[in-house]
Amino acid sequence: MRLSALVAAAIDEDLGHGDVTTEPTIGPEVAGTGRVLAKQALVVAGHEVARAVFAEVDARLGGSVTYDVLVPEGTGVEAGTVVATVAGPLRNVVIGERTALNFLMRMCGIATNTRRFVDAAGPDGPRVVDTRKTTPLHRDLEKHAVRCGGGFNHRHALFDGVLVKDNHVDAVGSLTEAVRRARAANHHLIRVEVEVRSLVELEEALGTAADAFLLDNMDDATLREAVRIARERKPSVVLEASGNMSIERTERIRGFGLDLVSVGGLIHQATWADLSLKIRRG
Amino acid sequence: MRLSALVAAAIDEDLGHGDVTTEPTIGPEVAGTGRVLAKQALVVAGHEVARAVFAEVDARLGGSVTYDVLVPEGTGVEAGTVVATVAGPLRNVVIGERTALNFLMRMCGIATNTRRFVDAAGPDGPRVVDTRKTTPLHRDLEKHAVRCGGGFNHRHALFDGVLVKDNHVDAVGSLTEAVRRARAANHHLIRVEVEVRSLVELEEALGTAADAFLLDNMDDATLREAVRIARERKPSVVLEASGNMSIERTERIRGFGLDLVSVGGLIHQATWADLSLKIRRG
Amino acid sequence: MRLSALVAAAIDEDLGHGDVTTEPTIGPEVAGTGRVLAKQALVVAGHEVARAVFAEVDARLGGSVTYDVLVPEGTGVEAGTVVATVAGPLRNVVIGERTALNFLMRMCGIATNTRRFVDAAGPDGPRVVDTRKTTPLHRDLEKHAVRCGGGFNHRHALFDGVLVKDNHVDAVGSLTEAVRRARAANHHLIRVEVEVRSLVELEEALGTAADAFLLDNMDDATLREAVRIARERKPSVVLEASGNMSIERTERIRGFGLDLVSVGGLIHQATWADLSLKIRRG
Amino acid sequence: MRLSALVAAAIDEDLGHGDVTTEPTIGPEVAGTGRVLAKQALVVAGHEVARAVFAEVDARLGGSVTYDVLVPEGTGVEAGTVVATVAGPLRNVVIGERTALNFLMRMCGIATNTRRFVDAAGPDGPRVVDTRKTTPLHRDLEKHAVRCGGGFNHRHALFDGVLVKDNHVDAVGSLTEAVRRARAANHHLIRVEVEVRSLVELEEALGTAADAFLLDNMDDATLREAVRIARERKPSVVLEASGNMSIERTERIRGFGLDLVSVGGLIHQATWADLSLKIRRG
Amino acid sequence: MRLSALVAAAIDEDLGHGDVTTEPTIGPEVAGTGRVLAKQALVVAGHEVARAVFAEVDARLGGSVTYDVLVPEGTGVEAGTVVATVAGPLRNVVIGERTALNFLMRMCGIATNTRRFVDAAGPDGPRVVDTRKTTPLHRDLEKHAVRCGGGFNHRHALFDGVLVKDNHVDAVGSLTEAVRRARAANHHLIRVEVEVRSLVELEEALGTAADAFLLDNMDDATLREAVRIARERKPSVVLEASGNMSIERTERIRGFGLDLVSVGGLIHQATWADLSLKIRRG
Amino acid sequence: MRLSALVAAAIDEDLGHGDVTTEPTIGPEVAGTGRVLAKQALVVAGHEVARAVFAEVDARLGGSVTYDVLVPEGTGVEAGTVVATVAGPLRNVVIGERTALNFLMRMCGIATNTRRFVDAAGPDGPRVVDTRKTTPLHRDLEKHAVRCGGGFNHRHALFDGVLVKDNHVDAVGSLTEAVRRARAANHHLIRVEVEVRSLVELEEALGTAADAFLLDNMDDATLREAVRIARERKPSVVLEASGNMSIERTERIRGFGLDLVSVGGLIHQATWADLSLKIRRG
Repeated sequence: MRLSALVAAAIDEDLGHGDVTTEPTIGPEVAGTGRVLAKQALVVAGHEVARAVFAEVDARLGGSVTYDVLVPEGTGVEAGTVVATVAGPLRNVVIGERTALNFLMRMCGIATNTRRFVDAAGPDGPRVVDTRKTTPLHRDLEKHAVRCGGGFNHRHALFDGVLVKDNHVDAVGSLTEAVRRARAANHHLIRVEVEVRSLVELEEALGTAADAFLLDNMDDATLREAVRIARERKPSVVLEASGNMSIERTERIRGFGLDLVSVGGLIHQATWADLSLKIRRG
Repeated sequence: MRLSALVAAAIDEDLGHGDVTTEPTIGPEVAGTGRVLAKQALVVAGHEVARAVFAEVDARLGGSVTYDVLVPEGTGVEAGTVVATVAGPLRNVVIGERTALNFLMRMCGIATNTRRFVDAAGPDGPRVVDTRKTTPLHRDLEKHAVRCGGGFNHRHALFDGVLVKDNHVDAVGSLTEAVRRARAANHHLIRVEVEVRSLVELEEALGTAADAFLLDNMDDATLREAVRIARERKPSVVLEASGNMSIERTERIRGFGLDLVSVGGLIHQATWADLSLKIRRG
Repeated sequence: MRLSALVAAAIDEDLGHGDVTTEPTIGPEVAGTGRVLAKQALVVAGHEVARAVFAEVDARLGGSVTYDVLVPEGTGVEAGTVVATVAGPLRNVVIGERTALNFLMRMCGIATNTRRFVDAAGPDGPRVVDTRKTTPLHRDLEKHAVRCGGGFNHRHALFDGVLVKDNHVDAVGSLTEAVRRARAANHHLIRVEVEVRSLVELEEALGTAADAFLLDNMDDATLREAVRIARERKPSVVLEASGNMSIERTERIRGFGLDLVSVGGLIHQATWADLSLKIRRG
Repeated sequence: MRLSALVAAAIDEDLGHGDVTTEPTIGPEVAGTGRVLAKQALVVAGHEVARAVFAEVDARLGGSVTYDVLVPEGTGVEAGTVVATVAGPLRNVVIGERTALNFLMRMCGIATNTRRFVDAAGPDGPRVVDTRKTTPLHRDLEKHAVRCGGGFNHRHALFDGVLVKDNHVDAVGSLTEAVRRARAANHHLIRVEVEVRSLVELEEALGTAADAFLLDNMDDATLREAVRIARERKPSVVLEASGNMSIERTERIRGFGLDLVSVGGLIHQATWADLSLKIRRG
Repeated sequence: MRLSALVAAAIDEDLGHGDVTTEPTIGPEVAGTGRVLAKQALVVAGHEVARAVFAEVDARLGGSVTYDVLVPEGTGVEAGTVVATVAGPLRNVVIGERTALNFLMRMCGIATNTRRFVDAAGPDGPRVVDTRKTTPLHRDLEKHAVRCGGGFNHRHALFDGVLVKDNHVDAVGSLTEAVRRARAANHHLIRVEVEVRSLVELEEALGTAADAFLLDNMDDATLREAVRIARERKPSVVLEASGNMSIERTERIRGFGLDLVSVGGLIHQATWADLSLKIRRG
Repeated sequence: MRLSALVAAAIDEDLGHGDVTTEPTIGPEVAGTGRVLAKQALVVAGHEVARAVFAEVDARLGGSVTYDVLVPEGTGVEAGTVVATVAGPLRNVVIGERTALNFLMRMCGIATNTRRFVDAAGPDGPRVVDTRKTTPLHRDLEKHAVRCGGGFNHRHALFDGVLVKDNHVDAVGSLTEAVRRARAANHHLIRVEVEVRSLVELEEALGTAADAFLLDNMDDATLREAVRIARERKPSVVLEASGNMSIERTERIRGFGLDLVSVGGLIHQATWADLSLKIRRG
């Protein structure tokens, strides 16, 4: 879903046939300004969508709200920082306020949470990457927020990367054959990753053309050993660890030699960051 | 956005032009089953949308996945409980898995979080209600999850309830006049609520036709006094407290005589509940 | 349906893949002007949608038509009055003419019809309100036209006001219980109205928490008595009369003490007002 | 706009996020039936769209409403006739009722009004045809209703018939040249009609390749003379009269030898016919 | 499908959630220019849609690409001619390149192919017209390209011209009756054409009110004879020949006295013309 | 664009508000059958979309057309072969005929053309792959047709594979740096290919992390040498040749040791294959 369509649907959802409070109380001639205020320490993300929200309100009510960025995305700020300002018809600002914040607070929350994991992985540790555990219709925005927090993205969706999991192996009957079929059916610019849950599976995976291994739900010792074996046998393979990854475990495994650690919780364990829009007439 | 359109857009987002792993490995003739497993204690919500996800996948790939509810929505379960099962073509199950869980985990998370606030408010305390702080395009689902958790809904959107806030008062020049205009402009089945932030504002509000007062960001003593005054002077008025409401504060104010306590955090401080779909061939 | 989408669909309907008369006869370089002329006495309504029609034509053909309002909405004019002018590429004016008038004539017809009922109700009588008997996809426009005519709106739709009718009562088994359930299930900013068709039902309704009574299809004597009883017993209740309301009856009941008289015929008995667009080259 | 999309948008408009009265009072297990009752003498039109309304409600709420036609479209009935029945889940019937009637009442109103003009034109007189003065997005339905009333359709839209009017002539500089260009630019299965407002214009039109003349706003004597001249000089030309055509004038000119009389008022002067849906539980 | 919607869908198809090559390598501040170069002799068609492609890219990425036409549509050019230039943000040009060319190359190919048939038919021969054998969703563009090549259009679609074929005749039981029904059911600005496959059918067709005959799949001698008979008996009838028409046959029958020769191959036997966009930074 | 939406838009395009020939001549009660006949030797492709066309017609008119596959996709057949049959209401078959064939003939044409290139490349030669030179909105279908013809697909679109071309290199300033940035910015399951136009560029490319080289527009000698060098220096790299590839050149280079030869002409030089639908009543 294109950003413009997403934002239009969001305004439809909240505004519908009209704002029954604002329309009778704030005329189109009244000007207003607003400051987007961080009420907690956070990492900034979401300016583009917030701007698009006010543009969509403008398209419906007339008038033109400007959205000026004071703190660029990806920056960490202290509580009390104004990260952007808006100015334009007061009623447009008031009507767009909630939807703009609903996007911004979510995205800043994800960026802020991601930053904690990125710090835990350290500058020399594995890349912290997201997963497909994203809020439906918000994937682009959430993956953008992860990047703002210093993380990286995994494949975008089911269509731009092969990840052979246990269900695929079960259906085919063997890991080796599942990888072979996936490789044969796909174009040459897509890589094949295979889920590996034990050292036995690792052995089989090493015999395939898979470009990457997802080392899933291994304990620390097994994980370390798996990395050692894989690195020795197939130096070019990409190694990713996953499985309910916490900050603590991220710190613990940062030196294991992994390329990637994937963390669904970057997004699904993030709560919204606290921001408000302080609006004034004039 | 209608449920069917929301679900179709969610599948577009994740599936796009095709699942490059599943299509070459799992043929349409392979059957599969799955169990939706709670991996933590949680309150169940989201069966309807999960079922709609598999129906949408069926509409694209052919075949028919059944989704059977084992534990109805609104029920609290222990970790390890299977709350629903699916059965049908394995590839449909595998392709729909992530999107279905992305909806379910979010909704169960909100229901579970809401239940905690509802318990804090107690059986004789105020209703716990949500706010407009919802994920864009997910409002219907999130408000449904709040009800599953035992909470109640506030107005749905800008169009089905008047809430006169400081910006409206500023634009008009007086709280009294703002309430008068909002009342005059709206139909007789919509009530008018006005935000009240001090006992002075309360005094002015009591002189208006407002049907409800939003007692916002008051300390406990002021809040208790505001309730006392309002009840004495205008027994029929609806009294709502709001402002970064925690579990602890909810418990503390449950006996103040409020009708409602509104809590944005029911939704925006909820993390996803942990559920998985255990899939098997056959 | 947003205004822009409604107008785009209207142009799709009439223009399709092209105007087979205008395209070969009027080039993009020919300028034109037009006057929107009232050919009968009428109340003006619909400028915004007429302007949007020409803007949509511009978006497809290029060029820019201006639409200047000479007589604002809500004003009554005599036959022969020019209420707006347009200027721009002649072919855009000619192509948009019919669709713009199809909206305008309908809306002016409704505003004009409404004004007659409003005059019948008099300055001290009940508000004249519309119903949900509106042309599908035109509800926003028709309700706007009612306001232009001096009328007021009833609830917008099924989602922003409770109206308990006989079918709901039958399903539940009692009026009292139906009102109770509707009240309990809805948020505090929505009021509950209940249909009352006799003095017996009135008695039961007075014992409920309903905020408004719809006194439906009562004869004059019963209606007057119902108002008297309700006012005595529950002064704050909103009283609405309905049922094939004519101008004559509206006049007759204006002094009965009702708050509202709802008239489906504001819209469904309105014929289109007679307007034309007098177009000239240059 | 396809019928299914039109009906879906109509239900969106009225139902939105839910029927706040029906949902808490009528469960999905309660059955209901309804009779579509003509409360005045009328000509029936609109069964297909009424059926589609209930099907759309079914698609959203589950369940299945049947719509059985008792009196086919195009039939005139007396007041008191039941023209169709519905049966299915009571809440689906109640939720679809208003939208179904909003379509049906409009269409029956148009069919009924058309029948009066058709009767006035008589069995040997000109065909009564509609115009492009139709309600935006309802053209298919309104033109269908005209046919139910015994009328015929003019061109559907700007794209399926050439009608050279004064503005086209002005832009080109001559009627003859305007007709020539329109003929040259269009495919061979589209005919060219030209507006003729005087006997002088008729003379010029007779020298062109136009297949039809629209004799617009002529008085009776001129109209009769125009028909006589045209029939003598160009027997195959189609002759159409137009201009604020009333029932009375239609009767008066029925013997003039015209092929067609076009009447915008078939649609824009039609009020809704009075029908109701009598619903019962069980 | 409106041009803007078609182009937006085309960009969705190729760009999706982002250009993974261009975004990391070409910043928004880098300017670029491009020349649309004919790499073969061809007839130009498609400027409007190419311009719309870059406008759509601009709407998503920001920035503004200008598209300047050097050689107008309908002109034949030699290999090596630059037919248009673009200038704007380099990344917008690079991202829009493929989609713009995919439209342009197709349309120039059709225009070029059409020109060959038009030349074969000669200045005094029949009009060369297209058919409904067009690429779904590209009909407007392909018919436009045919006109650029000097051809003319047949009816646009099933809705703007009657063409009675063998299946219609079979269903009704007689050609005469099929023509009569089609004539009676349609408005007076649509003509009726009937497919005629033999001199026997011609005889029957001449007795109907059909305005045009489609002389389908006749050998040269029969075709010539059919024209002679039809011209003698009904001079005003439009005569069209069809049936796997080649360049050679078009030349051969150009003097037979036909009005039209319809050639599906204008479109379905056209390959894409060879054009490229030579892009430079700065 | 989903298949169902594509097909619905295609029917909108051809059917619009109705088939003015078929509706008055073929009633819903008349049954019909049809045979999809190959009128030339061809490779079959497109059954799924043809079936979807008739299903879409059914959804609008009622009734149910079955589409039975006689010859599966990917099979080569002689002229005169019936590849599928249809049966159902005659009017649905007649109305869907043209659109179904417009899809089928295009797809069979592409499959047939692809087969010729695949044969030229031989069983031991490089894979024949398509490009992004596809008809807008038909990419899924055209790429499917390529596979039916024995070819393979290149990346689907700009979003699922990195291809660094000269414009990207120019913008960045060096091939090495462009590859580095693209690699760094993308997830680990996407490969990076770089365009190489000379042995000098090859040298630079060999020093990067690029996974594949697009050897573009090299003469045979250079191409052979480039393969030799690359294979020696980086055995795992994927080698693709491109540049106006003909059947003849494909045969000539089949033994050069390439992995892939990409041919835009599979699609853009394919003309439609000749198929017809022979329809009979009953």
